[in-house]
Amino acid sequence: MRGRFLSLEGGEGVGKSTQVKRLAAALEARGLNVVVTREPGGTEGAEGVRGLLMQGDVARWSAHAETLLFAAARADHVEKLIRPAVEAGSWVLCDRYVGSTRAYQGAQDIDDAAILALHGFGSKGLLPDRTLVLDLPEGEGHARSIDRDGGAADRFGARGPDFHRAVAAQFRRIAAAEPDRVRLVDATGAVEAVTAALIDALADLLP
Amino acid sequence: MRGRFLSLEGGEGVGKSTQVKRLAAALEARGLNVVVTREPGGTEGAEGVRGLLMQGDVARWSAHAETLLFAAARADHVEKLIRPAVEAGSWVLCDRYVGSTRAYQGAQDIDDAAILALHGFGSKGLLPDRTLVLDLPEGEGHARSIDRDGGAADRFGARGPDFHRAVAAQFRRIAAAEPDRVRLVDATGAVEAVTAALIDALADLLP
Ligand SMILES: Nc1ncnc2c1ncn2[C@@H]1O[C@H](COP(=O)(O)OP(=O)(O)OP(=O)(O)O)[C@@H](O)[C@H]1O
Ligand SMILES: Nc1ncnc2c1ncn2[C@@H]1O[C@H](COP(=O)(O)OP(=O)(O)OP(=O)(O)O)[C@@H](O)[C@H]1O
Ligand SMILES: [Mg+2]
Ligand SMILES: [Mg+2]
Repeated sequence: MRGRFLSLEGGEGVGKSTQVKRLAAALEARGLNVVVTREPGGTEGAEGVRGLLMQGDVARWSAHAETLLFAAARADHVEKLIRPAVEAGSWVLCDRYVGSTRAYQGAQDIDDAAILALHGFGSKGLLPDRTLVLDLPEGEGHARSIDRDGGAADRFGARGPDFHRAVAAQFRRIAAAEPDRVRLVDATGAVEAVTAALIDALADLLP
Repeated sequence: MRGRFLSLEGGEGVGKSTQVKRLAAALEARGLNVVVTREPGGTEGAEGVRGLLMQGDVARWSAHAETLLFAAARADHVEKLIRPAVEAGSWVLCDRYVGSTRAYQGAQDIDDAAILALHGFGSKGLLPDRTLVLDLPEGEGHARSIDRDGGAADRFGARGPDFHRAVAAQFRRIAAAEPDRVRLVDATGAVEAVTAALIDALADLLP
């Protein structure tokens, strides 16, 4: 029996990695076989691309080159890990996926249609059964990531508030455009409350 | 005054790197400012992608992931090196370019139109003023590369004769489709004779 593919998306520090772990535990407690993974990365090849993408100057890659690198990493991840795991019956929980490319590269004026065309080419357009977008008011995710690690920024975190505001707006746009498959979840509450809201947003998929 | 962009293409061991150097010397002797570069690579970012592409198992990347990685590396190379150098008046000589993607990934059933679409996205479709395709009878390039280095193969050289036959056929098809911009040059003669044939194939561009 086919499993399910779920992605968690959202800006810097909104709680994706925290909630992926908690969600995995909640699904395992229901007897489901869960695979947790992340992007960019998740397979050996894609983690190699991640190294190129996340390190170095903000200007190391143009938005176009960056978009192609994300599509390449995702192609490997989908082919070697996500698709086989879902076909084998697992619930795959992915910390960021193509929604993050649409939001982060979209915020740099890369056409949404072009991003989806690259996704069609590299990954046969595979979309999660449900995409959960964690949403916080402006600045709160950044404040959380400063609490976490002093704000140790990668190439994306290093960008300014205008960029992160544009990213959050893209995520909301993506959620509004596909209300059935994509759910915007308020991430302001306590960790436990957010987990409960995420499980709520999955209720119709759960066995 | 704008310079010119020339690429040398062809299968394994046909003499591209040998002729790029000789052609550079011949163009410099005519007082031209020449920049020699190569693909995949040519810039710091693109050389990083080259590392991922050329090493490891033949099966390390799917043809789709590979095609995206080549497009990403090329986007960086075009933006940071090729386009600025040509605009500054240099003659840029590139050892492999998008023709090699069309031939090598095309030989793995990647659509030519898709490769050109990725090239349009990443590199604004920049094509050389002239593409010189070195052509040898089957097996001769492989024999030359065994003479050179014992046949120390990268991920592409490691493939079998059927693959290399398909690559050579793709190169001939590319040359036939654009007879003005792309020239097929017989590479069987002595090194000096091949250089002379290449200069002949550029005669209309030379000052
Ligand atoms: N609901 C919450 N309330 C308060 N703090 C939280 C909440 N959820 C997570 N945090 C804390 O916020 C910080 C960021 O969380 P986390 O690392 O999970 O976010 P993220 O979305 O994965 O960030 P990044 O985009 O950097 O990967 C962590 O220190 C985490 O403990
Ligand atoms: N015209 C020629 N006749 C005989 N040998 C040649 C000729 N041109 C090049 N060679 C030799 O053939 C070998 C391959 O040449 P070269 O490295 O230039 O090919 P290449 O197309 O760059 O190969 P690769 O695809 O591996 O990069 C070298 O040893 C070179 O000296
Ligand atoms: Mg995280
Ligand atoms: Mg060479």
